[in-house]
Amino acid sequence: MGRLQVGIIVGSDSDLPVIKEAAELLEEFGVGYEIIIASAHRVPHKVAEYAQKAEERGLEVIIAGAGGAAHLPGVVAAWTVLPVIGVPIKTGSLGGVDSLYSIVQMPKGVPVATVAINGAKNAGILAVEILGVKYPELREKIHAFKRNMAMAVEAKANRLEKIGLENYLEEMK
Amino acid sequence: MGRLQVGIIVGSDSDLPVIKEAAELLEEFGVGYEIIIASAHRVPHKVAEYAQKAEERGLEVIIAGAGGAAHLPGVVAAWTVLPVIGVPIKTGSLGGVDSLYSIVQMPKGVPVATVAINGAKNAGILAVEILGVKYPELREKIHAFKRNMAMAVEAKANRLEKIGLENYLEEMK
Amino acid sequence: MGRLQVGIIVGSDSDLPVIKEAAELLEEFGVGYEIIIASAHRVPHKVAEYAQKAEERGLEVIIAGAGGAAHLPGVVAAWTVLPVIGVPIKTGSLGGVDSLYSIVQMPKGVPVATVAINGAKNAGILAVEILGVKYPELREKIHAFKRNMAMAVEAKANRLEKIGLENYLEEMK
Amino acid sequence: MGRLQVGIIVGSDSDLPVIKEAAELLEEFGVGYEIIIASAHRVPHKVAEYAQKAEERGLEVIIAGAGGAAHLPGVVAAWTVLPVIGVPIKTGSLGGVDSLYSIVQMPKGVPVATVAINGAKNAGILAVEILGVKYPELREKIHAFKRNMAMAVEAKANRLEKIGLENYLEEMK
Amino acid sequence: MGRLQVGIIVGSDSDLPVIKEAAELLEEFGVGYEIIIASAHRVPHKVAEYAQKAEERGLEVIIAGAGGAAHLPGVVAAWTVLPVIGVPIKTGSLGGVDSLYSIVQMPKGVPVATVAINGAKNAGILAVEILGVKYPELREKIHAFKRNMAMAVEAKANRLEKIGLENYLEEMK
Amino acid sequence: MGRLQVGIIVGSDSDLPVIKEAAELLEEFGVGYEIIIASAHRVPHKVAEYAQKAEERGLEVIIAGAGGAAHLPGVVAAWTVLPVIGVPIKTGSLGGVDSLYSIVQMPKGVPVATVAINGAKNAGILAVEILGVKYPELREKIHAFKRNMAMAVEAKANRLEKIGLENYLEEMK
Amino acid sequence: MGRLQVGIIVGSDSDLPVIKEAAELLEEFGVGYEIIIASAHRVPHKVAEYAQKAEERGLEVIIAGAGGAAHLPGVVAAWTVLPVIGVPIKTGSLGGVDSLYSIVQMPKGVPVATVAINGAKNAGILAVEILGVKYPELREKIHAFKRNMAMAVEAKANRLEKIGLENYLEEMK
Amino acid sequence: MGRLQVGIIVGSDSDLPVIKEAAELLEEFGVGYEIIIASAHRVPHKVAEYAQKAEERGLEVIIAGAGGAAHLPGVVAAWTVLPVIGVPIKTGSLGGVDSLYSIVQMPKGVPVATVAINGAKNAGILAVEILGVKYPELREKIHAFKRNMAMAVEAKANRLEKIGLENYLEEMK
Repeated sequence: MGRLQVGIIVGSDSDLPVIKEAAELLEEFGVGYEIIIASAHRVPHKVAEYAQKAEERGLEVIIAGAGGAAHLPGVVAAWTVLPVIGVPIKTGSLGGVDSLYSIVQMPKGVPVATVAINGAKNAGILAVEILGVKYPELREKIHAFKRNMAMAVEAKANRLEKIGLENYLEEMK
Repeated sequence: MGRLQVGIIVGSDSDLPVIKEAAELLEEFGVGYEIIIASAHRVPHKVAEYAQKAEERGLEVIIAGAGGAAHLPGVVAAWTVLPVIGVPIKTGSLGGVDSLYSIVQMPKGVPVATVAINGAKNAGILAVEILGVKYPELREKIHAFKRNMAMAVEAKANRLEKIGLENYLEEMK
Repeated sequence: MGRLQVGIIVGSDSDLPVIKEAAELLEEFGVGYEIIIASAHRVPHKVAEYAQKAEERGLEVIIAGAGGAAHLPGVVAAWTVLPVIGVPIKTGSLGGVDSLYSIVQMPKGVPVATVAINGAKNAGILAVEILGVKYPELREKIHAFKRNMAMAVEAKANRLEKIGLENYLEEMK
Repeated sequence: MGRLQVGIIVGSDSDLPVIKEAAELLEEFGVGYEIIIASAHRVPHKVAEYAQKAEERGLEVIIAGAGGAAHLPGVVAAWTVLPVIGVPIKTGSLGGVDSLYSIVQMPKGVPVATVAINGAKNAGILAVEILGVKYPELREKIHAFKRNMAMAVEAKANRLEKIGLENYLEEMK
Repeated sequence: MGRLQVGIIVGSDSDLPVIKEAAELLEEFGVGYEIIIASAHRVPHKVAEYAQKAEERGLEVIIAGAGGAAHLPGVVAAWTVLPVIGVPIKTGSLGGVDSLYSIVQMPKGVPVATVAINGAKNAGILAVEILGVKYPELREKIHAFKRNMAMAVEAKANRLEKIGLENYLEEMK
Repeated sequence: MGRLQVGIIVGSDSDLPVIKEAAELLEEFGVGYEIIIASAHRVPHKVAEYAQKAEERGLEVIIAGAGGAAHLPGVVAAWTVLPVIGVPIKTGSLGGVDSLYSIVQMPKGVPVATVAINGAKNAGILAVEILGVKYPELREKIHAFKRNMAMAVEAKANRLEKIGLENYLEEMK
Repeated sequence: MGRLQVGIIVGSDSDLPVIKEAAELLEEFGVGYEIIIASAHRVPHKVAEYAQKAEERGLEVIIAGAGGAAHLPGVVAAWTVLPVIGVPIKTGSLGGVDSLYSIVQMPKGVPVATVAINGAKNAGILAVEILGVKYPELREKIHAFKRNMAMAVEAKANRLEKIGLENYLEEMK
Repeated sequence: MGRLQVGIIVGSDSDLPVIKEAAELLEEFGVGYEIIIASAHRVPHKVAEYAQKAEERGLEVIIAGAGGAAHLPGVVAAWTVLPVIGVPIKTGSLGGVDSLYSIVQMPKGVPVATVAINGAKNAGILAVEILGVKYPELREKIHAFKRNMAMAVEAKANRLEKIGLENYLEEMK
């Protein structure tokens, strides 16, 4: 794994099963990351400190995941000038629309780059795209990633064409 | 106005026309209050400091109003053990449902006492009810307030009965 | 358990598995409480009587939980000057957004301090915070509670840092 | 106007401009009605008394309109065995979806016959349909009402066919 | 079972498990009913015929349940002067909010008395309340029904008081 | 105008200002159409008759616009084998989400081709696309229409490039 | 199976279990179709090429299914003059309301004929109705299909009448 | 203005009054940008070409604004490896929730960095934050921007403290 570049932060360890997809994606791209539990409501001083020191520690992007009244990404963004990516976590009662609104509807001056509900993998890709602005080798890797993704779709399309819908659905089970 | 007991805090001065109903209500009850502008996203250190010092400064309840990704009430609640009342401010695009979810859906451990969208007057009343737990004279005033409110409804009901619907509607214009 | 200070009221015994978290929290803080079943729609006279007598019986805060057209907290608030905390119960069809709107959108004059959908534990904490305005020993306990909560987050954060994401997720299962 | 048969009740005089369509409809059908202001939250005792005495006073149907956390129809229904028709009033922030959920999502045992948001005229018609179960002359009037309504649609359709869309739109202005 | 007074109609036999609660309630009150499958979209002529003949066949109230684009209650109401009660059926994707809007938001002139999502039991009670306007013996039965309902709540409340929350929750399992 | 091919039907003349865009589009393409007012709730027999005779009268597509509990498109679709295009009309309280759900969520067996809220122009285009399956000259016209549309966008893009954002915004006023 | 007339396209093979109902319906009507996997986001060039060549390849209708930010139907519609039918796929967090809005709310000029969430069967029927405008034998088959559908409802209605609700529910299990 | 670094693209010139705040922000930071009208539905080839060539033309970030079925940001993201920021434009009927869902709910593999409804200014800031990863002088400017923003809040707070709520509200008018 490369030099530490991305900080991933979640408000509760119950968010880890979702957010791990971001970690795995960064791993796949060889981007150094750390993963931290630090609730904006339960340990606000720690979040403030983490976000404030992120720049001098050499972090370049922060990914923050939270659910419900999901303040973590916005609070982190308040304390740093690094780009902050927010991952709304799906909730039991409202399906994550509460998390989404709490993250995306930020006031003028302090943006959070919001991805889909439970969209942790895309948070990882977006982090790499942002780093790709600076690091040409990462941008090349995204090109390759996109080609692979396209080829995977093509492979499925070909398989479907070859064996037909019924057999394909059978194989999916 | 009495001793300073309630801190009212808003994230933006555009929230003042709504939140002023809380101030007026406290004024009516003779409860001392202060009103502060301090965005959780633009001056997070100030919010943290304000909330942390609130208790030692003698504040007993905090009212916080915010709109959109309305983190202010929850962030204040993170830094204090005082009861925090949240007022979701109506927003242009989503009508305030974003503000409401961002305020009410707090995680376990850090509650915000949420009132209706734009419900600043009720935030004031709730603050007085909370203070009324401690101060018998305030509780008496709420009894009187409720009696007056009931009498006002009765007066309207009597007027309607006396002059009829058509005339009443005419008078309302 | 201390002197009776908090009344917990639910509209249906099907709400008990949710609301018990409020009871457990009060127990943890040594706050005396009682728990009552009394539907605003099926035994309205009992609710009215309960709420009207709450003050003279020495109750200082009321917690009311209800789902769907969740009128109980608002109806209780109509009959008392005590602070009333409302817990919207999650519903099968609308996820509790019906309960939330029915509780939080109270008209001017009669507030309900609303917490998150199924947020019974936070209702308990809010009740203690309100009592803490009057009783210094309870406020001290909230300070301790917050410190413990922060330490629990730190412990998880340290464990995650020590054993890594994969092992942590394994342990969570 | 005939014998008093329908009670119309609103929680606030601000609901009168909407609810008056119910009154006008009853007037048109010659059904006796009264119209009352009595908030479920501000004068709960009055609402309880009104609903409890409605049957012995000879009322046969009650129409209740309310907005926001619209408890009035359900609270009335709790105190009476008469059919209660609920009119959700449109609200400034949520468009009346809060009123609708608060009225329609009643628990088992205590129904409210809910009509559309601001659907006061339909509340009146529904009241007449209910009375029509008992009074044949009212049922005949509904037949006539429906015929007239159909003829009014036909007249518009014919006018449109005769003068064409452009002219029709011109006349509508 | 008494003389045929209520027609229950559903659009699909998949709605029967929900709507049966209406049938059971009417059975409990000794009100004669019939239950019919007749989709507004698949057999529109049958629905039209059924609704048109309902009055002359002596039906006095119609209950119609449907889900999704739930047109059945409104279509029935279009063809009859009898009061029509609509039961929105919960749907897999939108939780029944589609059914609710399709039933309750009727245009001026043709009301549907809407009950809660999946509120079939309340549809039955409402039907009895409507019939109770005409038949004093049914109204008496509703009084008894309400008393029994209140006593059932009291019994639960007493049981809870007697054995405590923990044991009560244990018994509920 | 060509031979009568498209029937446009609205439930209320208040829908005409929206639906006229469909008429204008058909006019532009030289497709013969008629426009009819016929509410599914107020004149159900007329709607049934119109939809049943549409095929033998030579109509090939039907466009139906309605708001609120918008049953018209689905009811028309129930009575015909012609493709039916539904236009949800924006409503005052719910913004048209009620109309949309009432039109699009049709049960298996009876589809309605739904377009955007107030999307009457697109309903017209869709009707032409459907007719274009049969009539090559109409398909050619859609090609031309799409080219023109693209050229109009290009013209705006060029204008913006030429005069700059500030001037362009000035011109838009 | 007849000549190739309908192209079915999905963005992900996870949509196949839903979309297969469209394929089965077309099969039942003897309409030739092909089924393709081609994501608007992962293989945009392939989608563009497919949609652009659809007309010259003799396709007459396209059905596109997608979930979440469901761009596929609209993107296909952008590249072709054939009628495009969109099937919003239900999603885990938002129930498919995201898919629905992303498909139905198309801007002026480029319609998508949207069916219900997961309404793949209706997409198939709508495709046949559209083809029926051109091919009389298909229209005849829809008449037969509708008759069969009506008879199936009648059969169920008769069965229910014959054996009663309780036995019918028993048989359904 | 500096070297061209950011491409701003909107689907319709009606989005320009909103998106101009992004342009103004970039101007303020001295970041070179261009602004383009190119609908994903009306000129899909142009959007594809623009997005594909963006990288080789030296663009480093793309901002895309769109409303309704807002496909533009996602379609651009499909054709490029640059980070794409999406701005959901408020819509007349659904308030922009349709735009938001269409932009944020992207499938795995192709993220769009979504900001608030009408959040064009924040899109600009986010673009600068992303560029700030690479260009230290831009990061310094964001630090200054944040300081200024904080000072502006402080200035308002001081003014409020100095002149009091009533006078402040007077001055705001």
